[in-house]
Parts: sequence; structure tokens; C-alpha cells
Amino acid sequence: MIITLITDFGSPYNGIIKGVIKTIAPNVDIIEISSDIPPFDIKSGAFVLYSSYKFFPKETIHMAIVDPGVGSERKAIAIKTKNYYFIGPDNGILIPAAKEDGIIEIRETKISLPYISSTFHGRDIFAPTAAFLAKEKNFEKIGEKINKFNDLEFFKLIHKDFIECEIIFIDRFGNLVLSIKDNDIDLSNRKLLLEKDNKIYEIKYVNTYANANKGELIILKGSSNFYEISIREGNAKDFLNLSVDNKII
Amino acid sequence: MIITLITDFGSPYNGIIKGVIKTIAPNVDIIEISSDIPPFDIKSGAFVLYSSYKFFPKETIHMAIVDPGVGSERKAIAIKTKNYYFIGPDNGILIPAAKEDGIIEIRETKISLPYISSTFHGRDIFAPTAAFLAKEKNFEKIGEKINKFNDLEFFKLIHKDFIECEIIFIDRFGNLVLSIKDNDIDLSNRKLLLEKDNKIYEIKYVNTYANANKGELIILKGSSNFYEISIREGNAKDFLNLSVDNKII
Amino acid sequence: MIITLITDFGSPYNGIIKGVIKTIAPNVDIIEISSDIPPFDIKSGAFVLYSSYKFFPKETIHMAIVDPGVGSERKAIAIKTKNYYFIGPDNGILIPAAKEDGIIEIRETKISLPYISSTFHGRDIFAPTAAFLAKEKNFEKIGEKINKFNDLEFFKLIHKDFIECEIIFIDRFGNLVLSIKDNDIDLSNRKLLLEKDNKIYEIKYVNTYANANKGELIILKGSSNFYEISIREGNAKDFLNLSVDNKII
Repeated sequence: MIITLITDFGSPYNGIIKGVIKTIAPNVDIIEISSDIPPFDIKSGAFVLYSSYKFFPKETIHMAIVDPGVGSERKAIAIKTKNYYFIGPDNGILIPAAKEDGIIEIRETKISLPYISSTFHGRDIFAPTAAFLAKEKNFEKIGEKINKFNDLEFFKLIHKDFIECEIIFIDRFGNLVLSIKDNDIDLSNRKLLLEKDNKIYEIKYVNTYANANKGELIILKGSSNFYEISIREGNAKDFLNLSVDNKII
Repeated sequence: MIITLITDFGSPYNGIIKGVIKTIAPNVDIIEISSDIPPFDIKSGAFVLYSSYKFFPKETIHMAIVDPGVGSERKAIAIKTKNYYFIGPDNGILIPAAKEDGIIEIRETKISLPYISSTFHGRDIFAPTAAFLAKEKNFEKIGEKINKFNDLEFFKLIHKDFIECEIIFIDRFGNLVLSIKDNDIDLSNRKLLLEKDNKIYEIKYVNTYANANKGELIILKGSSNFYEISIREGNAKDFLNLSVDNKII
Repeated sequence: MIITLITDFGSPYNGIIKGVIKTIAPNVDIIEISSDIPPFDIKSGAFVLYSSYKFFPKETIHMAIVDPGVGSERKAIAIKTKNYYFIGPDNGILIPAAKEDGIIEIRETKISLPYISSTFHGRDIFAPTAAFLAKEKNFEKIGEKINKFNDLEFFKLIHKDFIECEIIFIDRFGNLVLSIKDNDIDLSNRKLLLEKDNKIYEIKYVNTYANANKGELIILKGSSNFYEISIREGNAKDFLNLSVDNKII
């Protein structure tokens, strides 16, 4: 049984979560997908989960915790989908992935350590819930079924002559992942203009990095089928000075 | 059997340590708690170990290596406590955790790879010691018993009208973990003043982030029961420009 | 069976690779050596692999992917050596390690996921190849044997009065790993001068950090037997403002 972990925690918090899981469910295999989501950036967390969950074996339990609302009234939830389980705060981080796979049931977890702190529910609630599920394999026992949840959708508006979208993730290479996919619109062989601070940048569409020159500003279909703005062997983020949530027209 | 790893090494050194352990004890489960302790910062390493060790299953072997004295005469030690084993340099990094759990015995390890370098005892001494212990389960065979060790205590002085303490860890969110705990002094509902560079900052006590406004400077009880100075969805470290070891009055 | 992972990917890409491997070969033990090689820096990747591969159990499958040529005609290869397997792009990253262990056979892999993207062969080709090899234990089935490959050698020229070499890796402490080893030339007890921007720096040879003063510029034999320029409890990279590939005379 695999439990994966996506957080904005860094050390030592991710390590503590692993300890809690191993204490409850010693035979679980814990795989860290990310411990370095930008702090409080729910949207980046949602993208990382969305782009990675489907590459794991069926029945994998995915934890995703970016949780600026910890200690408030926001719910801690577990979602059963067609092929996976998802555990995290009810702030939308789980939703793009869960919806794509097909939501079957959502429950508010009542599983926790004996003492619940007000700042670290990853340790006190989410880790025990994931470990309980891995061990007991009984989704119904996690807690009460709920029907309402906080949604999260990547923003996009596709007009006749222009596109409005947003940056949903920036990777280590400075590639800017956009909220539009190849089945939203076919950009291949089209000339694209990006407006930013009253400047116009021309962006060349390519099929692969190898078709661009070093330092050239390009757009291509990324590995999760979202379009990405990139600079070959360069850093588009630093060049354009953009960040997650920036709207692009 | 679990071996955990806390270091300031980064890659490739942590990976090499894992290879050495797996070669000697193939069935061990290695869990990395941190590979990014600030370089040479023994105190941060001690805090990370202290705040995480107790969440792992009993008998877990915890390695913590921040080792500016590598190659000198400092000893390489293993500590048996009530519930755990601790392995690392004799510079105090293991002590707050080991003392809390209850020290039973300390030994100077004589276990090593055939060749010992002068710069990387994590690979040559600490990893073989941890793997030997995981495999042989014989603490006595590690080496000679010793009675003296280098201590480390988090500094604090609690006066009638003010507190002297230090920052013992700064996490990824810029939260400043202080050396005072809730059972040292009850700060709840008190007005706190922080003096820094002849400026006075007023800090509000809250029970949880959700009770603060965005950007507000707050103090609250952290997840390890140490008080933390924080800015809600902000970065207290950058705002106050403080670092580990800074004394706070 | 162990598969190790060295990349410049960061999250979520390394996590996705682990998912692909676990789906194909559930019992494999995946050990991440590095996910933070400087972007596109093949030489640093080659050094990290070279310095770590030999500390893993025999038969370990080492993946190393720094791949600026992804999507071009560069081959995806697997190398069988005396004791290990190596998988990665044919750009030299595998070669220093594979040559040292003794190359037996090189094959171009034909193993992949059903759909191959143009930007993420780590997920689509290298991970399936490693997992296939771990599961089937049949190197011949990976693909056609090839005889030509792209070489990579660390540059060095040792003259009578001076040495030309390059920096092949910079670690987290700012230590500058040079391309010369102790069996190239014995530097101990010699006076060394480093020329940089028309300034001359004197560098003291020491056997171990403990023999240097804090802040002193030193050279010593590193843990992989390459010489390293270092500042005791300081950062030689920031002080000298050098980077990987810089030639040093």
C-alpha cells in the first residue's frame, strides 16, 4: 500500500508525518511527491496532485496539504474516487484530481491523534487518517459523509481573438504552466502574443525544446497536456517576472 | 526497522549514506527527516531531532549529523534511550532529544567502513554504525561505554518583567521557533513587546493562525509546544531579519 | 532490488517517476540521491553519479537524468557494467561512473509508456526501462546493442609548474570540487596559488577541516578523492564567485 505526500511544509514537518504514518501502519510505502510547494499556494498544490496522481498504482492514498486555514473551521476531508483515495483540507486542493478520476464519496474525517494542535493537522489529523485507511481499508469508518465541498477550477476564458488564462504552476526550470490544455484550443503553428506591463512578447509554438534555439521564448504542450511558456535552457519565470495566479491575456 | 536521517548535507551526500546503509542492512527502511539543516547549525539540527523523534515507532534508530568538527578529535557516539537509539557526533545535537526520552547508555562507536576519510564521517562511521545496530541489534558491540558527553541546552532566562530567549529554528514559512515552552511560562492573553535594533514591536498572542489577520505579527504555541513568532500568511524571518542563535529580550 | 534517482527535475517530476516505477515493479526500493542538480548541468549530474554509485549494493539500477536534449535525436540508453546498471540519456552523464566500474554492454532502450511526450522522457522512457529491468532481470530485452556513445571526461592538464582544471561540482556548503584527484598529483604540503580576475589567492593545503582556521581558504582531498577548494565554516563559492565549468589555472 502506497501513501503519497504533497505539502508546502519542508523539514521537519514532512518527516514527522512519515513517523506518524509508520507508527500506525508500519508496512505502508510512503512516497514524497513534493515538500516544497510555495507556502500557502493551494493552486500549485492542486496542479502537482493533478499531474501526478494517475501515475501511481490503483488504491494509492494521496495526501495533499497546503493549509493556510489550519485551526479555522475548514473541514478535513477524505475523498474516494474511481481508482484512488485523496486526503487533505477542504480548500479545493484535492478537487481537480478527484474530479478527473471521478468522485464517488466524500467524508469528513474524525480520525486523529489523541491531542490535536491548532497549527499542524498534517501530523494530528491527515497522517492518522491516511494510515488508518491504509491499515483498515474501510473508507466508511473515517467519518460522516458530506455532500458539499469547496471547489477549485483553473481559470480560463477562450475568446475568438485572444485567451485569458492564469499560471497554475512554475517548475524548477522556470517553465510557466498555463491553465489551458491542448483540447481547449489547438495552438500549434499559431503566432502568439503575450501582453505584460504594456509590452508585447512574441512567443513561438514548438513541438519540443529541441526545435527552439537557446534563449528563445516558446510555448509548447507540457507533459500534463497543459501549455507551458518556456525558454530553451533558460528561465521564463525570471525573464517575464511572473508568478502563480498571474492572469495572462 | 527504521533508520531516520537529519543532516545539513544536501545531495549527493545523503544519497551515499543511504547506499552504505542498504549495502549493510538491506531490509532497513530509511526515512529522511531533513537534508537541509542550515550548514553547520547544530542547534537547528538538535531542534529538528527533538521535535520529530518521538513520532516514530519505538526502537527507531535516529541519525543526526551536523558536524563542523569532522576530522577533529570529537567523538562519534551512539546513545540508547528508553525507547530509541541516537547516532551522531558528540557536539550536543543528540542531547535534547535523548535527555527527554531518558538516556540509558552512551557508547563511542568503533564501527566504520575499512577506510575513514577526514571529511565525511556520515558515510564512513555514522551510516555503518546505524546499519550495524539495525542488523545485529546489539548495542554493546558498538564500542566502549563513555560517561562524559558535550551537552546542549536551549538558552532561556525568565525574569519577572521580561524574558531572554533565543531562536532555535526557523521553518520554511519563516516562523521563528523560540526556546521557551508553554510550561515555562503561560503567555496567553498577555501583551508582548519585542526589542530589536532599538525598535519595539508589539506582538499579539493568538491560539491559532485563524485568529490573526493576514500580515499581523503574532506569537502562538507551535506544534512542539515551543512558542513561535509568526506572521499570518507572511514571513516573520524576513520581516524581523533575525536568524538562529539571535538572542531575544 | 534498488533503483536510484539523480535528476535536475524537482517536484512534481521526481514523484511522477516514482509512481511509474511502483506501478510496473511494486517491490522495488526507490532511493532518491538527488533531485536538485543545477538545471541542464550534465557535468554535475555525472559527478554526483560517479561519487555515489559504488556505495550501493551490487545489481542496483542507477537512473541519472539531466537531459537538455529531450525531444531531439539523442538516444536513451542502458549500460550494464561489472556490478551495476545505468539508465539515462546518451549525453555523457552515465559515462564516468560506468567506465570506472567497467562497461560490459550498452543498449538503446525501446521500453516506454504507450504514449511518449516530447518533454518528459524520465516518466515515459527512463522510468519504464528501469522498472522493466528490475522486474524482468533481462538486460538483453531492453533493446538493440550499440557500440558508439557520447563520452564525458572531466578536463585537466597537469603542467610542470601549474595545473589547469575545472570545477565539476559545488556542494551545499559551497565547496568547489575540482577535476583533479590525489593520484593525478600529490598536493599535500605544497603552496598553491589560484588566479581569478587578475587576483592571486593563496590556498593552504590541509588534511582536514579541523586543521584550518575559521574563514581560511583551503584545499583538501574530498570524500571522493577529488581535491576541493573550501573555506572552513564558510562558503568558497560565494567568496570566489565561481561556478561549475569554470576553468581554473
